[in-house]
Amino acid sequence: MGMTMTQKILAAHAGLDKVKAGQFIEANLDMVLGNDITTPVAVKEFKKMGAKEVFDKKKVSIVPDHFTPNKDIKAAEQCKFIREFAYEKEIENYFEVGEMGIEHGLLPEKGLVVAGDVVIGADSHTCTYGALGAFSTGIGSTDMAAGMARGKCWFKVPSAIKFELKGKPQKWVSGKDIILHIIGMIGVDGALYKSMEFMGDGIKHLSMDDRFSMANMAIEAGGKNGIFIVDDKTIEYMKEHSKKEYTIYTPDEDAEYDEVYEIDLSTIRPTVAFPHLPENTRTIDEVGEIKIDQVVIGSCTNGRIEDLRVAAKILEGRKVAKGVRTIIFPATQKIYLQALKEGLIETFVKAGAAFSTPTCGPCLGGHMGILAKGERAIATTNRNFVGRMGHPESEVYLSSPAVAAASAVTGKITNPEELE
Amino acid sequence: MGMTMTQKILAAHAGLDKVKAGQFIEANLDMVLGNDITTPVAVKEFKKMGAKEVFDKKKVSIVPDHFTPNKDIKAAEQCKFIREFAYEKEIENYFEVGEMGIEHGLLPEKGLVVAGDVVIGADSHTCTYGALGAFSTGIGSTDMAAGMARGKCWFKVPSAIKFELKGKPQKWVSGKDIILHIIGMIGVDGALYKSMEFMGDGIKHLSMDDRFSMANMAIEAGGKNGIFIVDDKTIEYMKEHSKKEYTIYTPDEDAEYDEVYEIDLSTIRPTVAFPHLPENTRTIDEVGEIKIDQVVIGSCTNGRIEDLRVAAKILEGRKVAKGVRTIIFPATQKIYLQALKEGLIETFVKAGAAFSTPTCGPCLGGHMGILAKGERAIATTNRNFVGRMGHPESEVYLSSPAVAAASAVTGKITNPEELE
Repeated sequence: MGMTMTQKILAAHAGLDKVKAGQFIEANLDMVLGNDITTPVAVKEFKKMGAKEVFDKKKVSIVPDHFTPNKDIKAAEQCKFIREFAYEKEIENYFEVGEMGIEHGLLPEKGLVVAGDVVIGADSHTCTYGALGAFSTGIGSTDMAAGMARGKCWFKVPSAIKFELKGKPQKWVSGKDIILHIIGMIGVDGALYKSMEFMGDGIKHLSMDDRFSMANMAIEAGGKNGIFIVDDKTIEYMKEHSKKEYTIYTPDEDAEYDEVYEIDLSTIRPTVAFPHLPENTRTIDEVGEIKIDQVVIGSCTNGRIEDLRVAAKILEGRKVAKGVRTIIFPATQKIYLQALKEGLIETFVKAGAAFSTPTCGPCLGGHMGILAKGERAIATTNRNFVGRMGHPESEVYLSSPAVAAASAVTGKITNPEELE
Repeated sequence: MGMTMTQKILAAHAGLDKVKAGQFIEANLDMVLGNDITTPVAVKEFKKMGAKEVFDKKKVSIVPDHFTPNKDIKAAEQCKFIREFAYEKEIENYFEVGEMGIEHGLLPEKGLVVAGDVVIGADSHTCTYGALGAFSTGIGSTDMAAGMARGKCWFKVPSAIKFELKGKPQKWVSGKDIILHIIGMIGVDGALYKSMEFMGDGIKHLSMDDRFSMANMAIEAGGKNGIFIVDDKTIEYMKEHSKKEYTIYTPDEDAEYDEVYEIDLSTIRPTVAFPHLPENTRTIDEVGEIKIDQVVIGSCTNGRIEDLRVAAKILEGRKVAKGVRTIIFPATQKIYLQALKEGLIETFVKAGAAFSTPTCGPCLGGHMGILAKGERAIATTNRNFVGRMGHPESEVYLSSPAVAAASAVTGKITNPEELE
């Protein structure tokens, strides 16, 4: 039996010709990532294990993005602690407020991850970089600590699910709708500890931003990682953003997949995940009348330039519905500047939306848009668990930026087609 | 004895020909203001006193600006509570996230306050509107409740201090430097329960933004209010922003002032207030070497367009010093759009500053830039009390936007002249 994309990358990084699902290996790491919530714990573990220096000053990234700009004294102390660590260990990829962004928007943009890399991050949405053909996965703070110290991490080689995509998505259907559709289909544990490997002819219709959004949510189906075949768009993206050498891994023809799903993208409708699980999906046609109090557009899932473009297209010349707070977060300062140049921010502010500096903000109930009891938000974020964005009796509906923007205009969950 | 500006306004609103310092009066209110911290308490009192409706739906303003976009569940609940009250009572000047701004930036801009008005606000910096020749002062939530119900408030008529301004300020000296200089001169209780009345030839050199900044900080000298003579600039501002009728009150020639200070603006140097009181001022020439961790430009004191322009002038083509978080907050969405059109936001983001949606944010240790133990900020805000911006062992230095921006570039408190 041959190997999947993920297995090939892991084998190469473990110095092995071949690995198979279930095998325990130790792989060399190309990048170790942490944020302001997970890094403090990792730093304490790093010190406890007696480590003196990080294994490679270029291969550690620390991004204080969750509770920044500092939400409160505790957040300030956490950031101070990791800043001091980063300075002391001369970590090159420490990103301060003002130069930063949301970690999973920032790393690809800074060229810190390319195809064929093995990346671990103490953040569950580290799987985002699979869009570039890398193996990347979320780990705990202890593994982050060991990774920073040794440049290695142990893995159980995952088995895999193949998603063979074909056809071209409908006008308002984005990567977010596709991944919500998939999670709705297989469930939040449908890919438990498996690679979700995306390939097929349909891929060519997906922008890099679509792919980042999809790989980002692999974890919401329980996946160990999500990974895309590398094509011309990937290579173009990497050439534009990175100076690192990349390696393209394709699955063996006889690679073993636990399941194979063939998905015709042209049949997917704009999709919304109802509370309180990403698998509770309905097509926009089945949504019914759901009034909302808040709209959140942004996050590591959908805070990229194309996300902002589609939201602006809908909000252009329109106003946010009375009583609806609409908060828009670009993923990075670079995206902020691009949105500014394209006139998107002007559109948002004129429409009555708040446009924030990059932060994870309300996505995880952090700050900058928390919900009160009984309030409902539609959000382009990645999780709608109980209390995710605030009060345990609040509700989060997940959608694409197009659906979220259309909903901002009407005050209820809305099909963007209706505003055409 | 004649009356001061403040006394004349109060007399007119109390239906009296004459009032004198120390007299208790009840005055009709032109505006009653509250924010997301003080309004919930006021609403509870309003209900307790059995009030059914507000006295005038046009004359109440509610601006959730302190912990918004909602910092946490508690903030969300507070905002929900006042939003429901505003909707139920059909309060016309309730401003939602996205259409809002910092209250004291918003009200003048929306034309809700003009010369001759009496305004109370459950926020100590309500004195800001004195820049327009109005009597405006901060009160508690109970007075706000009574004000909303009855349209009246009791006052002890204040005695007054006259500030006779002459001369033209030096290049980098703004209203903020002048008011810091004055507070340094008379102390934080130097104007206790008195009107600070600003007049004289020097006024013509002060923009409306300078005057807002100065009136805003009257409370930092203990003043009951700060008030400026109305001149052509004031009238032009009101014509541009408001449809309300205004009345100009000038002090009687024989008005009684407890003290008279003649201040030559041309002699004032850029001024910084050291921790932990606004009266601890030093000229920029006496500052010495003070390293900083954070720069905050914005707030109801200095988040107006001229403040952003001067900061951008200094940051243009430059970079924020490594390790310094620079956070810039426009006071309103209108100012946000203006800054955007003028290219200021591009300058800030390119320089490595975080540009936020309007919020009171870190000024009061709310959110979006809180300090850790031992950290130091220079801020264009109005208070530098112990723990004001975070940890009790952090420090805040108050300055103008010019000094704050220059400090962002060098990482220590810096005279903008040095960067010319």
